[in-house]
Amino acid sequence: MSHNSFGTLFRVTTWGESHGPAIGCVIDGTPPLLALSEDDIQPWLDRRRPGTSRFVTQRQETDQVRILSGTYEGQTTGTPISLMIENVDPRSKDYSAIAETFRPGHADYTYHSKYGIRDPRGGGRASARETACRVAAGAVARKVLGPSVTIRGALRQIGVHGVSDDDWDWDAVGDNMFHCPDPAMALVWESYLDDIRKAGSSVGAVVEVHASGVPAGWGAPVYGKLDGDLAAGMMSINAVKGVEIGAGFAAARLRGEDAADEMLPGNDGPGFSDNHNGGVLGGISSGQDIVVRFVVKATSSILIPRRSVDTSGAATEVVTKGRHDPCVGIRAVPVGEAMMACILADHMLRHRAQMG
Amino acid sequence: MSHNSFGTLFRVTTWGESHGPAIGCVIDGTPPLLALSEDDIQPWLDRRRPGTSRFVTQRQETDQVRILSGTYEGQTTGTPISLMIENVDPRSKDYSAIAETFRPGHADYTYHSKYGIRDPRGGGRASARETACRVAAGAVARKVLGPSVTIRGALRQIGVHGVSDDDWDWDAVGDNMFHCPDPAMALVWESYLDDIRKAGSSVGAVVEVHASGVPAGWGAPVYGKLDGDLAAGMMSINAVKGVEIGAGFAAARLRGEDAADEMLPGNDGPGFSDNHNGGVLGGISSGQDIVVRFVVKATSSILIPRRSVDTSGAATEVVTKGRHDPCVGIRAVPVGEAMMACILADHMLRHRAQMG
Amino acid sequence: MSHNSFGTLFRVTTWGESHGPAIGCVIDGTPPLLALSEDDIQPWLDRRRPGTSRFVTQRQETDQVRILSGTYEGQTTGTPISLMIENVDPRSKDYSAIAETFRPGHADYTYHSKYGIRDPRGGGRASARETACRVAAGAVARKVLGPSVTIRGALRQIGVHGVSDDDWDWDAVGDNMFHCPDPAMALVWESYLDDIRKAGSSVGAVVEVHASGVPAGWGAPVYGKLDGDLAAGMMSINAVKGVEIGAGFAAARLRGEDAADEMLPGNDGPGFSDNHNGGVLGGISSGQDIVVRFVVKATSSILIPRRSVDTSGAATEVVTKGRHDPCVGIRAVPVGEAMMACILADHMLRHRAQMG
Amino acid sequence: MSHNSFGTLFRVTTWGESHGPAIGCVIDGTPPLLALSEDDIQPWLDRRRPGTSRFVTQRQETDQVRILSGTYEGQTTGTPISLMIENVDPRSKDYSAIAETFRPGHADYTYHSKYGIRDPRGGGRASARETACRVAAGAVARKVLGPSVTIRGALRQIGVHGVSDDDWDWDAVGDNMFHCPDPAMALVWESYLDDIRKAGSSVGAVVEVHASGVPAGWGAPVYGKLDGDLAAGMMSINAVKGVEIGAGFAAARLRGEDAADEMLPGNDGPGFSDNHNGGVLGGISSGQDIVVRFVVKATSSILIPRRSVDTSGAATEVVTKGRHDPCVGIRAVPVGEAMMACILADHMLRHRAQMG
Repeated sequence: MSHNSFGTLFRVTTWGESHGPAIGCVIDGTPPLLALSEDDIQPWLDRRRPGTSRFVTQRQETDQVRILSGTYEGQTTGTPISLMIENVDPRSKDYSAIAETFRPGHADYTYHSKYGIRDPRGGGRASARETACRVAAGAVARKVLGPSVTIRGALRQIGVHGVSDDDWDWDAVGDNMFHCPDPAMALVWESYLDDIRKAGSSVGAVVEVHASGVPAGWGAPVYGKLDGDLAAGMMSINAVKGVEIGAGFAAARLRGEDAADEMLPGNDGPGFSDNHNGGVLGGISSGQDIVVRFVVKATSSILIPRRSVDTSGAATEVVTKGRHDPCVGIRAVPVGEAMMACILADHMLRHRAQMG
Repeated sequence: MSHNSFGTLFRVTTWGESHGPAIGCVIDGTPPLLALSEDDIQPWLDRRRPGTSRFVTQRQETDQVRILSGTYEGQTTGTPISLMIENVDPRSKDYSAIAETFRPGHADYTYHSKYGIRDPRGGGRASARETACRVAAGAVARKVLGPSVTIRGALRQIGVHGVSDDDWDWDAVGDNMFHCPDPAMALVWESYLDDIRKAGSSVGAVVEVHASGVPAGWGAPVYGKLDGDLAAGMMSINAVKGVEIGAGFAAARLRGEDAADEMLPGNDGPGFSDNHNGGVLGGISSGQDIVVRFVVKATSSILIPRRSVDTSGAATEVVTKGRHDPCVGIRAVPVGEAMMACILADHMLRHRAQMG
Repeated sequence: MSHNSFGTLFRVTTWGESHGPAIGCVIDGTPPLLALSEDDIQPWLDRRRPGTSRFVTQRQETDQVRILSGTYEGQTTGTPISLMIENVDPRSKDYSAIAETFRPGHADYTYHSKYGIRDPRGGGRASARETACRVAAGAVARKVLGPSVTIRGALRQIGVHGVSDDDWDWDAVGDNMFHCPDPAMALVWESYLDDIRKAGSSVGAVVEVHASGVPAGWGAPVYGKLDGDLAAGMMSINAVKGVEIGAGFAAARLRGEDAADEMLPGNDGPGFSDNHNGGVLGGISSGQDIVVRFVVKATSSILIPRRSVDTSGAATEVVTKGRHDPCVGIRAVPVGEAMMACILADHMLRHRAQMG
Repeated sequence: MSHNSFGTLFRVTTWGESHGPAIGCVIDGTPPLLALSEDDIQPWLDRRRPGTSRFVTQRQETDQVRILSGTYEGQTTGTPISLMIENVDPRSKDYSAIAETFRPGHADYTYHSKYGIRDPRGGGRASARETACRVAAGAVARKVLGPSVTIRGALRQIGVHGVSDDDWDWDAVGDNMFHCPDPAMALVWESYLDDIRKAGSSVGAVVEVHASGVPAGWGAPVYGKLDGDLAAGMMSINAVKGVEIGAGFAAARLRGEDAADEMLPGNDGPGFSDNHNGGVLGGISSGQDIVVRFVVKATSSILIPRRSVDTSGAATEVVTKGRHDPCVGIRAVPVGEAMMACILADHMLRHRAQMG
């Protein structure tokens, strides 16, 4: 497919650089007659927005979304929905010093190697600012999915501190700065991240996203598998280095009798003894919760000097003095939810196409 | 995209059921004038073939591939390459007893839920037999990539026993039945798997695939990222539940100063202090080795009875008496290599299109 | 899209050369539970088959189709349908003399220019033999469309002799060798074509295809327009040089008050005063008959010597002594019908996806 | 593909309604390091702009384009180029009276049938205003093609008056309001169209577009044929009812010895005796000029009353009192050029991908 689009029928194309005049996306394939206004999208953007706590970048962006097409009198018309978010606080000066330097761990060198040119202002196209468009598209996708599908994300792990299943409380996620499902762990993280932040460092994290209410049958074997698309979608989020479904990498240790969730008679379709498969079997949803996890590496925009080279190939040292996130995983939670929503919406339409 | 195809420019479409007359694939977009005959493809298929040791299914398939189109006098012509492998040992009787039963951990129930019909013979389309087509396509992809790119796979972990980086020897991989890079571990696995096999059970595994010689610059941000496509490709392999790049899930624990591979002046482009990023930054190759890992769950085709339901919803019990693999991860190694080859070939062409 | 595939959801990929071992196609996205066997496909192939009259090429092909995947017990399963037709009468010797010559009006020179290699046997991939796969796919598409949609094709014009609307009788189409809707004109054509055939020449033709029973609403503005897809589909048939919808090129002369079909109240949706728009307005079906016309140029495989160059660039002369068609438009009728069927099936599924 | 996008590698997605806040497009896949600013795009938009003569709609749009992403310091970066044109003169009141009426010959009824909702202001998404985005994208495509490819369009026919080849002078095209290559005919048209305009009527036209300098070898058989993509592209322009290549429909009357352009030895590749094939053989360019023609029907937005029905199905009468074009074909000339440019740019990149 083309480079900046995803989805087959619910198709999202994003555009824009971190410090250009605006970023945005075009969403094609949305069914008509869905109620949609900026008020349906803005709350999700506000959740992702920078500057909301001391643990996320202090860039001041209002992230006001504007619908430029695709609706009429508050309803979708089935035509492309164009969404635009203006960049109001670019602060290009923060980045000018490193225009000739490749920041280690960033995409500076690879963009330069590929294109022979890059927009150095705030990471240009490689900036996590692009994920605002995913969140906006996710808000539309939730409209497509309707109220029967519920998507929830949480931060499962920051650095060395992970939440155990026993302490998991979805209701707690909204009560702290971290989307943490365990209030006690949220306090641990606060102290832990404060130390990291003060040290000018950063750390990785694991995000977990669940979708409930997805009926059995969505997905398209064998290369359009639901979990294959989820893997691609999550891996395409900035700084993600791994994706897993259900038991994920822990499945390596499981024996066949444990890995296979047993099936049990149920009143409303069969039940399952467990959900090691994360709601997907053979690339098709089973009716259980879809469970996806992904890991976000620590940002390399830190105050600790790191060795690098400049565009001439000479050795240099990089210290990022601008705004940054000690744990970019925090802001990845709403992004992961949005990707889940978009991919499910696409598969809902694909399923409907083939099955009527 | 359509359901049974992958790749944008090097595009593979597979077809066929486990117990139908044949399986095959069509490969479109191959450059012309590459030397190609069945002899270039057969050795890779032989590596994946069932019945090669007591640890893989004893189904007797010769897996003889036939080129039906796309070559002339031993060279590719740029037109679609159609490959066919006849099924010679289907043994439908092995499976007839369970046609009305949903095997736990398999795609029986989800295919049934989606389509209202399924081919119960050997898993039908959901059978791992489909992966033979990937291996065949991978052989063609290696031709496209040429000799400068080397792709190697190994089994990193079986059940609770993993190979450490210190003991890793690529040269050892071909010397044992497991594609194991550590001869000592291969002996451990042999004993371990014999016990599991005799117990009628199975176990999961982790496969690791490296690609060397990929130049900096391949990949297509932001939704056509090289690692995004690798994630989708590996996740689409049967029984895979997770994919990671470079440090992968271990990156959650890494601090920013450790996660970012430092850059160092080099004679032939910059060097890197490490490869936590698995050769991909911002979705584009960095010139380092591409490193991908994926987990394969234990097969649920085991002799140990498991609870399930039949198509009427009533409780039943499932025991798989037919041929099966105690560790399907073993045969996933050449499949992972093939997916790496196909995805790299596609990105090589995509890069060439945009960059000349 | 990739080169040898068409359709978004009902997706057809064809492969094979004129004189290779076989040709075939893979059809992906078909809904399950449709009754399908070789007997549903063979009659359509028989209609297109060479050797059925003295006005079509005398190559003796049985064109026996075989279903290799995608059905179980006589029903589609929703997985890829692989169809194969073996080439039984290739006669490579007919073509060996011209392997080094570019036949004027054929794709020899352009394939050579693009690929640097071509299969010279019978036109290789550029042979009209590829259209047998379209006809086979069209038979499956008709199953998807169901009995409410009727697709009919006819030959409207051969050389200077065209059928007028007043003499058009669909019931006559099957009664002559030409798919001619006017019995009197069929006699004219017989004499006219006999002269052309005896002169070793050939002539062009116009094919017209109608689809009845398509409901209002199929199509996808603005680049997935129903008529846009029909134009691409028909233009991709060998030797086609033009496509038109409804009034087509005659619309240049029409005034606005005549070009717009007036709408009239009706019992079952609105009626129309005429069908200048060929059943498509704004790229979406109107409920009227879809009317498409395309022109097929005369084949350049003739007995009359023509000037050309060889692969070294030197002047030469080309006379085609092998089997050939005096009017390839005759055999294009079932091909045009098949393309109509495939494109409508695709749009039926696309409409269902978005609209439920 | 998705509905509002075209192109495989040079991919254009358009959005926007006639009377919404703006229209625009996203262009993905552009090579980097091309000089590009608004000044490269604006002149082409000015050529298409309404209000430039009494023969095109008097809507006053400045059509000022703004580049929102994809360039840095005046050069393309290889990332998506987002272009936006604000709508400054929507005049919604002109159209409010007919919100409940289906205008004959327009897409009102088909959009309504498909979506159950439509934006009635100025035709909404079905407005020819969308073609401004194509023209903007075409300006970028010309940059991709570079100076060696020249694309020129002209109006070949208005109503009953056509330009003959003998009188064709490309240099005359810019000297009149009609893009007419024959100054004498331009005078005929002026008088002819004045009569039609005063009568409140409209008439159809034929546009012809040539591309010179395209090397032999571009195109992708068999479903990605260059002429197939051109046919789809031109047919997707508003009001187009037919497309032809080279001799087009006239080829029906040609004999094989005339239809095949003979090949002749040349200094810089072979020459051709004629160009009946319009520069495309077997879907691949021959090195000759690419010649495409398409017909644009008369607009139904006329002062002459026409019978129609309203959304309740009752009979009514439609008279379009707003601004309109007596011959929309005039403004289709730059649109046809732009589509040619975009499709050639896409095939240039596709060719480069496969052939290196």
